[in-house]
Amino acid sequence: LKLSSHNLCFLGYGNVNRSLAELLLDREQELRERHGTSFRITGIASRSLGWIANAEGLDPGEVAAQPPSGANSQDRHSQSDVRSWLAAAKCDVLFEATSLNVESGRPAVDHIRAALEHGAHAITANKGPIVHAYRELRDLAAARGRKFLFESTVMDGVPIFSLFDQLPAIRLQGFHGILNSTTNVILSEMEDGLSFEEALRKAQALGIAETDASHDIDGWDAAVKTAALITVLMDVSVKLEEIGREGIRNLSAAAVRAARKEGRPYKLVCRATKTENGVEASVRPERISAMDPMARITGSSSYIYFETDIFPGLAITEETPGLYATAYGMLADFVRAVWE
Amino acid sequence: LKLSSHNLCFLGYGNVNRSLAELLLDREQELRERHGTSFRITGIASRSLGWIANAEGLDPGEVAAQPPSGANSQDRHSQSDVRSWLAAAKCDVLFEATSLNVESGRPAVDHIRAALEHGAHAITANKGPIVHAYRELRDLAAARGRKFLFESTVMDGVPIFSLFDQLPAIRLQGFHGILNSTTNVILSEMEDGLSFEEALRKAQALGIAETDASHDIDGWDAAVKTAALITVLMDVSVKLEEIGREGIRNLSAAAVRAARKEGRPYKLVCRATKTENGVEASVRPERISAMDPMARITGSSSYIYFETDIFPGLAITEETPGLYATAYGMLADFVRAVWE
Repeated sequence: LKLSSHNLCFLGYGNVNRSLAELLLDREQELRERHGTSFRITGIASRSLGWIANAEGLDPGEVAAQPPSGANSQDRHSQSDVRSWLAAAKCDVLFEATSLNVESGRPAVDHIRAALEHGAHAITANKGPIVHAYRELRDLAAARGRKFLFESTVMDGVPIFSLFDQLPAIRLQGFHGILNSTTNVILSEMEDGLSFEEALRKAQALGIAETDASHDIDGWDAAVKTAALITVLMDVSVKLEEIGREGIRNLSAAAVRAARKEGRPYKLVCRATKTENGVEASVRPERISAMDPMARITGSSSYIYFETDIFPGLAITEETPGLYATAYGMLADFVRAVWE
Repeated sequence: LKLSSHNLCFLGYGNVNRSLAELLLDREQELRERHGTSFRITGIASRSLGWIANAEGLDPGEVAAQPPSGANSQDRHSQSDVRSWLAAAKCDVLFEATSLNVESGRPAVDHIRAALEHGAHAITANKGPIVHAYRELRDLAAARGRKFLFESTVMDGVPIFSLFDQLPAIRLQGFHGILNSTTNVILSEMEDGLSFEEALRKAQALGIAETDASHDIDGWDAAVKTAALITVLMDVSVKLEEIGREGIRNLSAAAVRAARKEGRPYKLVCRATKTENGVEASVRPERISAMDPMARITGSSSYIYFETDIFPGLAITEETPGLYATAYGMLADFVRAVWE
């Protein structure tokens, strides 16, 4: 086994990238011995930390320490923008996990473009770049002989996009599923007796919903994921506003409980179907038949059902994802990018 | 896109390889345009046809015609064994689909060994070689720089083995599922009122059960699939006799119907769990909780649930596979083998 070594850079240093750094260090031996891949962390950047780079290697624990201490403290704020930071870190692989701007995909799109132009692989957990700039970034990556990968954007790193890389010459006619955890947790908690507000607070306390959860509740997150799947797997350009979208804000707790009692619970369902001219897609609360597997996707679990010409129904269920699921998707993208 | 061209050989020319030849011709354009892969069929061999080879290309319709006619008839019986046939066909990819000998894996193991030593990729729908010779054939393929692939051996070509190729450094702790269609169809039909014998005849009429269905009914097929998954995905050597095995022959129609009525139906369940010293595995009829997704896997559908450290529950469901599902798995293996 030939061993290849890679300089890794983390842009955005919240939950996802911190978990990824931990997971990479935890799996260092397996990556080396089973996948011929070794690494060092040479760049970490975030709004609060600044642009930290050291091509000789950084200690992520040291970097995250407040206040800064030790040998690496001089690396802090050593650069002033993403391009000089990538260069100073001699970056081979960028992990992009800044927060999402649904409307523009910025600044993630710029970060990824900069990484690919620098000659690094770009791996993101950020759905914006796919919805706003998929074709440009895909073609740029191909032209530079680098990879643009984004497995963690849908279903927490369960290999959905990679699965379709394994399905050559298949025809995807449509899909449906439950792709947003926050609303699914809220609906499950409402079925169990909580009000909408109580359920939302519980989801926030569990770390599933963000402080501003309107992005989830109003169906934006599910719509962006639906758009990402359509864009990549169906190769159809779709704008976010073309996806019929309705959130769960107007569902009363009484209606949610009654629906479950009748055996036909409410779920926030994503749907897409190929048409002659493109794709029809929607995100909205639907009452699910008791026989449908979606009826039992509760809490933070998720589900997707693909209709293809070869497999009329191919479904993937993720039950109660682990804490490292999203970070793992990025680790797996790293191996996909560098493993020959 | 660089176009690569490959000589394909079919060994065994029953349902699976005939469907594969049809599917390849149907998808020729997509394979060429999207995957840079073109092919011609240069070898077809079976007990009834003999060893037919022509490095300039064969017409599969012509070959299968009885009695032989036209220009290719002189290629018939042109060779006397697998090695000279592979050489005469200038074989790049062997599709092995001869009938399975559970006890020895023969002759499939010999065919695959011959193909790899000849310098061809070897793709099989045959579980025997995995259970009996996986490590040898894997290592031989690696030494020759060729691929040994077998996606069609479990769940009709749904990418199960390929999925785990996309899951680096993950730890698989166990799995359970429903992997044998014949017994699942029989159980579903018994629930609907047929006797065991009537249900078996119906499965045979549908082309799902073979004339001698004891291989399915007594749990051998499910046990071989379980052993294949353990061998490849858990990297544990397991012998078929180490898997506790009980078929559905002793279930009465009355018991099967009563179990379904009570909401806890019988299913032939495959299970494997990692232990300190290896793996514990079984195939046997179990009564399934109504809440378990397995309860609604009826007819020819199948299901597998993987327990991993990253994804505590990652499940794949195949609903009512299409006619070309198994052949498709071999087509996908072909693209995996040759696509750079």
